[in-house]
Amino acid sequence: MNFKNLSVAAVALTAALASVPVAADTLKFGKAEDAIKYRQNSLFVMSQHFGSLGAMANGRADFNADIAKQNGAVLETLAALPWQGFAEGTQGGKSKPEVWKEKTKFDGHASDFVAQAGTLAAAAKTGDLANLKAAFGPAAQTCKACHDAFRNR
Amino acid sequence: MNFKNLSVAAVALTAALASVPVAADTLKFGKAEDAIKYRQNSLFVMSQHFGSLGAMANGRADFNADIAKQNGAVLETLAALPWQGFAEGTQGGKSKPEVWKEKTKFDGHASDFVAQAGTLAAAAKTGDLANLKAAFGPAAQTCKACHDAFRNR
Repeated sequence: MNFKNLSVAAVALTAALASVPVAADTLKFGKAEDAIKYRQNSLFVMSQHFGSLGAMANGRADFNADIAKQNGAVLETLAALPWQGFAEGTQGGKSKPEVWKEKTKFDGHASDFVAQAGTLAAAAKTGDLANLKAAFGPAAQTCKACHDAFRNR
Repeated sequence: MNFKNLSVAAVALTAALASVPVAADTLKFGKAEDAIKYRQNSLFVMSQHFGSLGAMANGRADFNADIAKQNGAVLETLAALPWQGFAEGTQGGKSKPEVWKEKTKFDGHASDFVAQAGTLAAAAKTGDLANLKAAFGPAAQTCKACHDAFRNR
């Protein structure tokens, strides 16, 4: 493990140890449709900023440190949002019933993702493409793990 | 003008004088539909957090200083997002053609809103309902002014 990877690992550890706000219930949805729309829309917006970081990490787009930093910061804020849109009684959309049947497991995935998004944002902030590359894969893996278990295709 | 209003006015002035990032082009949309979806989705998510602040400001919901602060912070981040989804070639959705024909005027509205969202977030951060009430109206007015001019019903 070189110094760069060590630095990313330290950031990851810090993020994992920090309190990770996942399901702060700051909104009251009038009807289930609003909650479903909220979670779908916030996930879509987030995916665009996440995708921009991925394109740079994977060499499909030129690395731009300033853009990476901005998209990382937006990602970190957005990562905390979707989860309050999955309250009991909001079944539907592309979500499998398991989201509500295995809520603890689902919440664990959400929490993992929030932690990884924080790590990715911190990596983007360093302005070093190597850090971005190192942090992107684990973050993308948390998306995939949750989608595989809880989202209908 | 009492001290509270003066304080809110000072915050407003600071926000107006600060550099207001409106159209930071941090994303590349593959097709116009993605840009339209991005702006619609980010505006919807934002509207939920904005609406929560409005409900408290207008007495339709109990004031909760912590929730107001959190929703203000999310609002401030989200306020900067939608505008890069209105690039040339992304006509459609509920947007009137005037968005692109009168781009300078549209951008001015967006910039006004970003400034007011910053002021509202700062007011929410004070934990004082009177500040929230004072800042909410002007922010809502910037939404309405732009919708009246640029959005189809």
